[in-house]
Amino acid sequence: MASYRLDELAQRVGGVVRGNPQRLLSGVATLEDAGADDLSFLTNRRYRAAALHSAAGALLVARGTDLAGRDLLEVEEPYPALARILELYHPPAPPRPGVSPDASVAEDVRLGEGATIEPFAVVAPGCELGAGVVVGAGAVVGAGCRIGDGSELRPGVVLYPGTEVGSRCLLHSGVVLGADGYGFATSKGRHIKIRQVGKVVVEDEVEIGANSCVDRAMLGETRIGEGSKIDDLVMVAHGVRLGPHALLAAQAGIAGSSRIGRHATLAGQAGVAGHLKLGDEVIVAAKSAVFADIEGHSFVAGIPAVDHRRWKRSQSIVQKLPKLREELRRLAAQIAELERRLEEEE
Amino acid sequence: MASYRLDELAQRVGGVVRGNPQRLLSGVATLEDAGADDLSFLTNRRYRAAALHSAAGALLVARGTDLAGRDLLEVEEPYPALARILELYHPPAPPRPGVSPDASVAEDVRLGEGATIEPFAVVAPGCELGAGVVVGAGAVVGAGCRIGDGSELRPGVVLYPGTEVGSRCLLHSGVVLGADGYGFATSKGRHIKIRQVGKVVVEDEVEIGANSCVDRAMLGETRIGEGSKIDDLVMVAHGVRLGPHALLAAQAGIAGSSRIGRHATLAGQAGVAGHLKLGDEVIVAAKSAVFADIEGHSFVAGIPAVDHRRWKRSQSIVQKLPKLREELRRLAAQIAELERRLEEEE
Amino acid sequence: MASYRLDELAQRVGGVVRGNPQRLLSGVATLEDAGADDLSFLTNRRYRAAALHSAAGALLVARGTDLAGRDLLEVEEPYPALARILELYHPPAPPRPGVSPDASVAEDVRLGEGATIEPFAVVAPGCELGAGVVVGAGAVVGAGCRIGDGSELRPGVVLYPGTEVGSRCLLHSGVVLGADGYGFATSKGRHIKIRQVGKVVVEDEVEIGANSCVDRAMLGETRIGEGSKIDDLVMVAHGVRLGPHALLAAQAGIAGSSRIGRHATLAGQAGVAGHLKLGDEVIVAAKSAVFADIEGHSFVAGIPAVDHRRWKRSQSIVQKLPKLREELRRLAAQIAELERRLEEEE
Repeated sequence: MASYRLDELAQRVGGVVRGNPQRLLSGVATLEDAGADDLSFLTNRRYRAAALHSAAGALLVARGTDLAGRDLLEVEEPYPALARILELYHPPAPPRPGVSPDASVAEDVRLGEGATIEPFAVVAPGCELGAGVVVGAGAVVGAGCRIGDGSELRPGVVLYPGTEVGSRCLLHSGVVLGADGYGFATSKGRHIKIRQVGKVVVEDEVEIGANSCVDRAMLGETRIGEGSKIDDLVMVAHGVRLGPHALLAAQAGIAGSSRIGRHATLAGQAGVAGHLKLGDEVIVAAKSAVFADIEGHSFVAGIPAVDHRRWKRSQSIVQKLPKLREELRRLAAQIAELERRLEEEE
Repeated sequence: MASYRLDELAQRVGGVVRGNPQRLLSGVATLEDAGADDLSFLTNRRYRAAALHSAAGALLVARGTDLAGRDLLEVEEPYPALARILELYHPPAPPRPGVSPDASVAEDVRLGEGATIEPFAVVAPGCELGAGVVVGAGAVVGAGCRIGDGSELRPGVVLYPGTEVGSRCLLHSGVVLGADGYGFATSKGRHIKIRQVGKVVVEDEVEIGANSCVDRAMLGETRIGEGSKIDDLVMVAHGVRLGPHALLAAQAGIAGSSRIGRHATLAGQAGVAGHLKLGDEVIVAAKSAVFADIEGHSFVAGIPAVDHRRWKRSQSIVQKLPKLREELRRLAAQIAELERRLEEEE
Repeated sequence: MASYRLDELAQRVGGVVRGNPQRLLSGVATLEDAGADDLSFLTNRRYRAAALHSAAGALLVARGTDLAGRDLLEVEEPYPALARILELYHPPAPPRPGVSPDASVAEDVRLGEGATIEPFAVVAPGCELGAGVVVGAGAVVGAGCRIGDGSELRPGVVLYPGTEVGSRCLLHSGVVLGADGYGFATSKGRHIKIRQVGKVVVEDEVEIGANSCVDRAMLGETRIGEGSKIDDLVMVAHGVRLGPHALLAAQAGIAGSSRIGRHATLAGQAGVAGHLKLGDEVIVAAKSAVFADIEGHSFVAGIPAVDHRRWKRSQSIVQKLPKLREELRRLAAQIAELERRLEEEE
């Protein structure tokens, strides 16, 4: 791995050095694991004590962070700067483009320059794959799919026929896009399948985590907006419109036809019921369930989800309900006593 | 795509035309996307305003729906009618039967007429596959599995050895049937694996969504009843008996050995603990957790799940707990005041 | 299948026979399914009535269990004994070692003796696989992975490059180890990917259920401790340290960088937020969410999770809130009446 001086790193990320600009750093490591040759970082205040005691050679910090005596690289936004520095130390592996002789690629598939198809991958007829696209081992791209430049499907991804994926997307192993939406018409106790003839459209620069699912729409589209980032084991049901720039943490789920605005965040294991509208920049707390429309810029929590401060207040009282009930009983006793005394008086 | 006149459609679904029976319709679309050549539909009252303003050429509606001035196709049950009309406009792709030269099929496998084995699929020894069965690309059918006529395994499905799947089933990508149940005997701090020597039996006309799991029983069977429909990322643990005609929405889970009656419904992210009995037609609300047996025909909600009206009432008061506590404090103050006055009197 | 006399079984598991030691048993079955030739077992008190009425030839029970008139095999710990007896009746299938001609194994891969690589599996350059390792059909082992002796990857497992798996592990179909952690730095409304350059380390004797995910660390490791057992559809995020000997039931999730002590248990659908510490032997109840550090030996429940007895008490009062509110109103009315009467007096 290449080494960089602290001032070189500062130049790359638009930062300022406090301490020794000549400090040579050969890698990036956590506060705990870092040695004298490593850059570490403080992006979360709760780790300040760990930062003070870290053996790291230097620390990437937010402007104004007080860590006296340490060699510091100060930047406006440490987290994006860390992203750039990690790219520097760990550049992506050089592509090994080409179609594996062990892959099954239909004759009419249009492959962009530098595309890679790994062993046992299948690309069905009518597909169009952009420049530099990578289809991982064992991945299956159904008939008539389109994948934009630079997008990568890790091993085992499945795209159902007609799925559209934008440019510079990253789909992790086990992702399934375009499976049938969960649509059944129940008549006389039997569930009749409603053919799901819509599709899934994933816009540019979307990342989807391992084993997550986005179902095809009954009609029209299920759409994942540009720049949205989806974690592992997430469910996006048929007809949902998400984002752009949404964040869905692990095991979150959105039921059919709901529309989630720009820059929305669902924390882990959160759920949104079907046919709802969530405005821009809505945040849903972990493990919460949204059962009604939510206005933009709200932060909601609970089951059902309400304003998170209200939820916090209610929950703190729920914890004290045994005391509240005791208090109620005491008051009842006091009242009975008052009544008795008053009767004596009368 | 074929076009149909409104009266032709009415004949197919046993409906009645209100308006122009000659209206020619070339497709089906959502209220939002439909144009003058499209049939749209109103199956959910909350979209009535959208129906009034839709550009659709005609609308499929429930008998007696008031949408004056529109060409209507009235039926008793719009949702099943929609299912039939979608089949009409979007007939399933004609099968391309045959065994891919890139598949690995054991010599003794019995393949029904018109079966399809796609590239890189594996069918292990001793399997019996019915007529018209489709094993998608990269799917793996373990030794001694049986799959009934007309069932389809989408790419990447895995059946562990000995799994039985009925007829006309549809298993979506990433489904795993028959993985070991989660059974360990803990002794002196170590978890000893209990061999799971039972199997999974999926009856006829079951659909299972992407990346869902049904584990094999320790002994005997895990059984998915006829006509049950399971959404994506659902967990059915070892020894569960489900259905028939159950509905499990996305990310729901049922722990080991529980028995769920006919026509039961688990909404999204609901959970049922192990060794429980849920009666027929039980509905468990989204995000709820069932920790006790539930009688048939109940609709339960909450954690732990109770009658949903009780849950709703309790939850609405939880929201008002801060007010309740204030009220309690006010009463305490009033009582103190009363006591003071009474003492003065005495 | 082999048959064993009850006294033979007793010898194998260090138990004592009550009743007929000559009783010949040809298999193991559930209380419900067992016939006169079967051994059944009672490991859960709620099935005592079923045990009394079971047609089983004999029953494996805990020492001192009162089931008069039945042939019993008494042991200290029935569940581990059952594990051993199931091994006896259902010995694992003999291995069919060798590399399938349909697999893709890089030239430099070091394969231990008796390793099995099934069709359409991929083992990338630089991997080291121990003796008796099984890589199931369609599984993908990325570059530079290490897998210890006797570990098995069921069909469709994916290990990202650099993943380390110990000895005697069992990874079920659809498991994804080492996918990128969910790390993004948000700047000016865009989510910038932070390269995840750490890895996943799975220690010895770990079992991971179908479609579960363990993400690679941003830096350093995500580590699954020795002997831990993970159920299906579980999420372990980047940088987590788990176990040893932890139990994670289905659909549980642990967010980034949290550390979970020895012998911890997360029940089904439980969640743990990021950057937390859970001590040894902590138990988190089903459907609960941990939002704060938890001391060792705690049993917590609820959202947010608190001591489970406190949770139970609070929840039982939540159910009675409508009554509590009525009571409050009644007290208010009584107080008003008292005030009126007192005023009359004054």
